[in-house]
Amino acid sequence: MVEFRFPIRVYIEDTDAGGIIYYVNYLKFMERARTEYLRSLGYGKQAIFNSNLMFVVKSVNVDYMKPASLDDELEVTAKAIKLGGANMVMEQLIFRSDELLCRGEVKIVSVDKATVRPTRIPKAMVDAVREQ
Amino acid sequence: MVEFRFPIRVYIEDTDAGGIIYYVNYLKFMERARTEYLRSLGYGKQAIFNSNLMFVVKSVNVDYMKPASLDDELEVTAKAIKLGGANMVMEQLIFRSDELLCRGEVKIVSVDKATVRPTRIPKAMVDAVREQ
Amino acid sequence: MVEFRFPIRVYIEDTDAGGIIYYVNYLKFMERARTEYLRSLGYGKQAIFNSNLMFVVKSVNVDYMKPASLDDELEVTAKAIKLGGANMVMEQLIFRSDELLCRGEVKIVSVDKATVRPTRIPKAMVDAVREQ
Amino acid sequence: MVEFRFPIRVYIEDTDAGGIIYYVNYLKFMERARTEYLRSLGYGKQAIFNSNLMFVVKSVNVDYMKPASLDDELEVTAKAIKLGGANMVMEQLIFRSDELLCRGEVKIVSVDKATVRPTRIPKAMVDAVREQ
Repeated sequence: MVEFRFPIRVYIEDTDAGGIIYYVNYLKFMERARTEYLRSLGYGKQAIFNSNLMFVVKSVNVDYMKPASLDDELEVTAKAIKLGGANMVMEQLIFRSDELLCRGEVKIVSVDKATVRPTRIPKAMVDAVREQ
Repeated sequence: MVEFRFPIRVYIEDTDAGGIIYYVNYLKFMERARTEYLRSLGYGKQAIFNSNLMFVVKSVNVDYMKPASLDDELEVTAKAIKLGGANMVMEQLIFRSDELLCRGEVKIVSVDKATVRPTRIPKAMVDAVREQ
Repeated sequence: MVEFRFPIRVYIEDTDAGGIIYYVNYLKFMERARTEYLRSLGYGKQAIFNSNLMFVVKSVNVDYMKPASLDDELEVTAKAIKLGGANMVMEQLIFRSDELLCRGEVKIVSVDKATVRPTRIPKAMVDAVREQ
Repeated sequence: MVEFRFPIRVYIEDTDAGGIIYYVNYLKFMERARTEYLRSLGYGKQAIFNSNLMFVVKSVNVDYMKPASLDDELEVTAKAIKLGGANMVMEQLIFRSDELLCRGEVKIVSVDKATVRPTRIPKAMVDAVREQ
């Protein structure tokens, strides 16, 4: 379960009156990286939306170490650090060069679209995550 | 077609690194006021979502006069200034006390949900807008 | 340290293609409630911005129980559950009537604006939080 | 004054409960493309923030033709179509392959940071825009 890295540029829309990135927006960056990670495994969002399951975010835990600023070039990682039957915990780190700015853990759960009940993550996807 | 006024407080989420409101967010404020205006006429968003038509935004034209800042208390107006068969142009002003900060014109079109084709705005709604 | 409650209406800007509130946006709602809580104690954001200290978010932990939808009327609480020398942990609950949709813990740290080093929360503020 | 093109992927954060991109967010996409266009001419946002002038958005006019959806790959153009002493009008088109989804005109004004008064766009920048 190696680390996936995705580059993100900071735009004015991401900042706040404190002159730095609005801390809430790091969660959007993490989701972009997660999305691209899953797409790289063959599970694009559209593919997931078209299947009979979907992923919902169950919890997020984020620690903020250092702020990022306008125009910064960041790298956001995505790595599965726990794989249960119907859920997966992703660790997501945000770097500016070698500096770690922010660390998140995001728990996502696979649910059936019709019933919205937890449902087993498809084996092919589990295998893809494990091999990656 | 009198003016509807809706109060909005500026939070840190609305600002940018320039220290003022991020100009794009005024469009969200305008939509909140439009939504509350339609709700006041008996057309809450949920009601609209549950009917067989929906409204889509066709164009927006916004002039920015003065910036607003964190914590400001604004008032956003909504007033239909044109009513066609399937569309409506709303004028929306954003004030801080007596100062006009921003003026927008938003054209919305009533479309059939199934076909996404323009469809006549229901007479009851037209009447409600006219009388208001 | 009683609970403060703040009403928030869900608008289209808050939703996502899943048809529910985009989970990241609950963090904005929590900040609105925190801001209003501090304002109710005499510490409006502007007042804080004008002083020589500011508050930064150090960590957020959020559990999502049930989704909210367009047009829902929510109530967001803010309550200090831990008060250190330079930091404060707030518990924030989001309700739709009696249903708990979401629970967050947000740790904020008081820092000196010039040095960005942690600095003691003013005694008057600690007292205000305690009495509240 | 040729056209600059910038690719943008649609993420869940960009969508709304209608299942499409929230129309307000196209303005963010346009600003990203404008920012990259100016950077390509040697005027990165940080460079502008560090100079004694800044650019403010004076007006936006946007026409929406067709909606974009989750996961779509868009291209956003930026082209100066008018260059005054202190202002510039940019035309910005949003495409999905050959389909034009949205067209915007954004007027930006160069102002002195200290006085916030309109100030002449530097000749080097005007030349860079003209030659481009």
